[in-house]
Amino acid sequence: MSVRAGIVVTGTEVLSGIIRDANGPWLSEALRGRGVEVSEIVVVGDRPEDIRRALDFLSDRDLVLTSGGLGPTADDLTVDVVASWAGVALEHDAALEERIWTIVGRLRGRLPFREAAMREGTRKQARVPAGATTLEPVGTAPGFLVSSSGPLVVVLPGPPRELQAMWASAVDVEPLRTLLASAGALEQRILRFFPLPEPQIAATLRELDADALPLEITTCLRRGELEVATVFGAGAADAYAGFEAALRERHGDVLFSDDGATIDEVIARLLAGRTVAVAESCTGGLMAGRLTDLAGSSAYVLGGLVVYSNEAKTALAGVPASLIAAHGAVSPEVAAALAAGARERLGADVGIGITGIAGPGGGTPAKPVGTVCLSVSTATDSEDRTVRLPGGRADVRDRTTTVALHMLRALLLRA
Amino acid sequence: MSVRAGIVVTGTEVLSGIIRDANGPWLSEALRGRGVEVSEIVVVGDRPEDIRRALDFLSDRDLVLTSGGLGPTADDLTVDVVASWAGVALEHDAALEERIWTIVGRLRGRLPFREAAMREGTRKQARVPAGATTLEPVGTAPGFLVSSSGPLVVVLPGPPRELQAMWASAVDVEPLRTLLASAGALEQRILRFFPLPEPQIAATLRELDADALPLEITTCLRRGELEVATVFGAGAADAYAGFEAALRERHGDVLFSDDGATIDEVIARLLAGRTVAVAESCTGGLMAGRLTDLAGSSAYVLGGLVVYSNEAKTALAGVPASLIAAHGAVSPEVAAALAAGARERLGADVGIGITGIAGPGGGTPAKPVGTVCLSVSTATDSEDRTVRLPGGRADVRDRTTTVALHMLRALLLRA
Repeated sequence: MSVRAGIVVTGTEVLSGIIRDANGPWLSEALRGRGVEVSEIVVVGDRPEDIRRALDFLSDRDLVLTSGGLGPTADDLTVDVVASWAGVALEHDAALEERIWTIVGRLRGRLPFREAAMREGTRKQARVPAGATTLEPVGTAPGFLVSSSGPLVVVLPGPPRELQAMWASAVDVEPLRTLLASAGALEQRILRFFPLPEPQIAATLRELDADALPLEITTCLRRGELEVATVFGAGAADAYAGFEAALRERHGDVLFSDDGATIDEVIARLLAGRTVAVAESCTGGLMAGRLTDLAGSSAYVLGGLVVYSNEAKTALAGVPASLIAAHGAVSPEVAAALAAGARERLGADVGIGITGIAGPGGGTPAKPVGTVCLSVSTATDSEDRTVRLPGGRADVRDRTTTVALHMLRALLLRA
Repeated sequence: MSVRAGIVVTGTEVLSGIIRDANGPWLSEALRGRGVEVSEIVVVGDRPEDIRRALDFLSDRDLVLTSGGLGPTADDLTVDVVASWAGVALEHDAALEERIWTIVGRLRGRLPFREAAMREGTRKQARVPAGATTLEPVGTAPGFLVSSSGPLVVVLPGPPRELQAMWASAVDVEPLRTLLASAGALEQRILRFFPLPEPQIAATLRELDADALPLEITTCLRRGELEVATVFGAGAADAYAGFEAALRERHGDVLFSDDGATIDEVIARLLAGRTVAVAESCTGGLMAGRLTDLAGSSAYVLGGLVVYSNEAKTALAGVPASLIAAHGAVSPEVAAALAAGARERLGADVGIGITGIAGPGGGTPAKPVGTVCLSVSTATDSEDRTVRLPGGRADVRDRTTTVALHMLRALLLRA
């Protein structure tokens, strides 16, 4: 059986672009991992009629997940709207109110605490749609499984940590458990390529007549890398194997990950005990910051030098002032000296040197905005590149770290 | 007249959570700035029937914006679906095809180029819904204004840079120009507070009976700061003034921005010629990276030291090994020494020192994960704090930079 789901994300602050929705994409991936096909994510504000309209829109799905609107304040309306939409009353659950009150009590020490206001909010959160199954609070808000004449509605809180933890326990609660068990298993495989332009993968997909395959193939550029994600049912394993082989035949030279690993994780594996250090200018700390994103990175990242000024390049990374004067701060020579300086000052096996023009100012005809010189070196080997990256300041800075990681991979593969 | 709009974001890679949608929130803010109320954002995959269903869902809105699905590949379906939904045919525009082909030709040098495949894609992109107004390509894809018996549909490309540039020119093109001109002007004001817990602002809003005011008020926590965004029409200026005054009376001591400026921008103004340098451990470069996010930051950021290992703390930032041995690497003493070391090694007026346990490993009962010691100092003054931050590794690292910026603000305000 195929199970189709829709997601309703509530919150005027999400709808208006003030905060970025994290829950829709997260739930979509979680559902896909359980074989459930998500047909749409609808973001609506905290207006009862708009939430109701979104539920109507999704009324022929098997499953609807809502996120947000479970808090103690008056603009938290989701439970009221879902109950009314499903045609059931709200009932006060005294035991639930006491459990929430116990949780709220723990906030006393940490937050300014107004007893009456807090009690009022708690009472509101303890109203349960008749016949619904309560999902115990992760923060202070309980969630609910509400059956309707149409889909099963799973009402989840808005804070991503609460939502994710509540979802993890909800999947074992009836009737959600049985519904999920009825979904056919779907496989997802991700292949990552760098560098590979989008028109080229598009041409490859046309050549392979990919539309005719029993595979749902999506391609996207992410942080400068091209990702091919393919979802398929149990019967299409052979079709996928053939498709992957055809991609490897055409683009295997730029395939760097076939097991879901990001370039960051690939690097962490490849370093295998070797240490790395950074001396960076235009990325201003983001290169070191990216290398230390992963837990456990202290095993191989020794540290970095953020050398924004020319004086800092010389004083901290030991780049000769004469070298800067001769070639300019943004030059392959200075990048190489930065990489060497990072290695020497931090005693690392591998050094990364970055210098460039992130913009919006500072460009020249010879070195326009987006020009970045990179060097990755060990004592005996190096990778050196000068690139011109598109986009604004944030794009150039972020893309630079991707290029550097791929240069580091190339160096480590031959070391 | 009130103009209501809906947004349709297409793309299986967005729906499935592989990439994060940037266009829905951006368009929502852009529309709000022009007095248009956005009622919902619908994210759908690249399936014709789902795109059509989303258009049906929004058929009683005045305006519908679509993003994505305008590329040369077969899964780019938006123009076909919109034309069919609006009941008009697609017509080939030979002059448009030549203009696109000129743009595509510029890619020859940069990308692997297969003439026949490229020409086929270009021909596909030059099909125009009958009666529609063409929006000239920013990348290679043209957009369209398509009138229907219901809403005006604005068809925009998916890449955010292309979408944003095309929207900027579309607002002056008829019939969109007239429709936007008919929308009443809305004001938006943003107040930012730190620190201010969400239950406390909720209690304040209840006290002020904010629901009864002619204001659309949304509160949200963003990177640890509390933001109160208020939208109101021309007639509600007095109501807003009273509301803001009441918030200032209650929470003025933690109000740090009333003009839309972020803490990053507040800091850039306050530095006013003074220079800053960083020595950071658990944030691993993100503090320096955040300080250099803003264009022009080279005027006041000299650089930073990423001192992940104890050896680097001593060698680069001059933290005595004996101090680390006596108090531990995560201690107020080491944070203060890092701030002083950053100032001295980089010759900066202000130093920021950060050392902490970002997790998931490394915590102890006395210093659990999330414990961070921060110090911000000049030669004669300092702010020092030890905090315990909630959340995972990425949360702790990001939140730390927010705390540091607010400490820096406090120091600069009394300097």
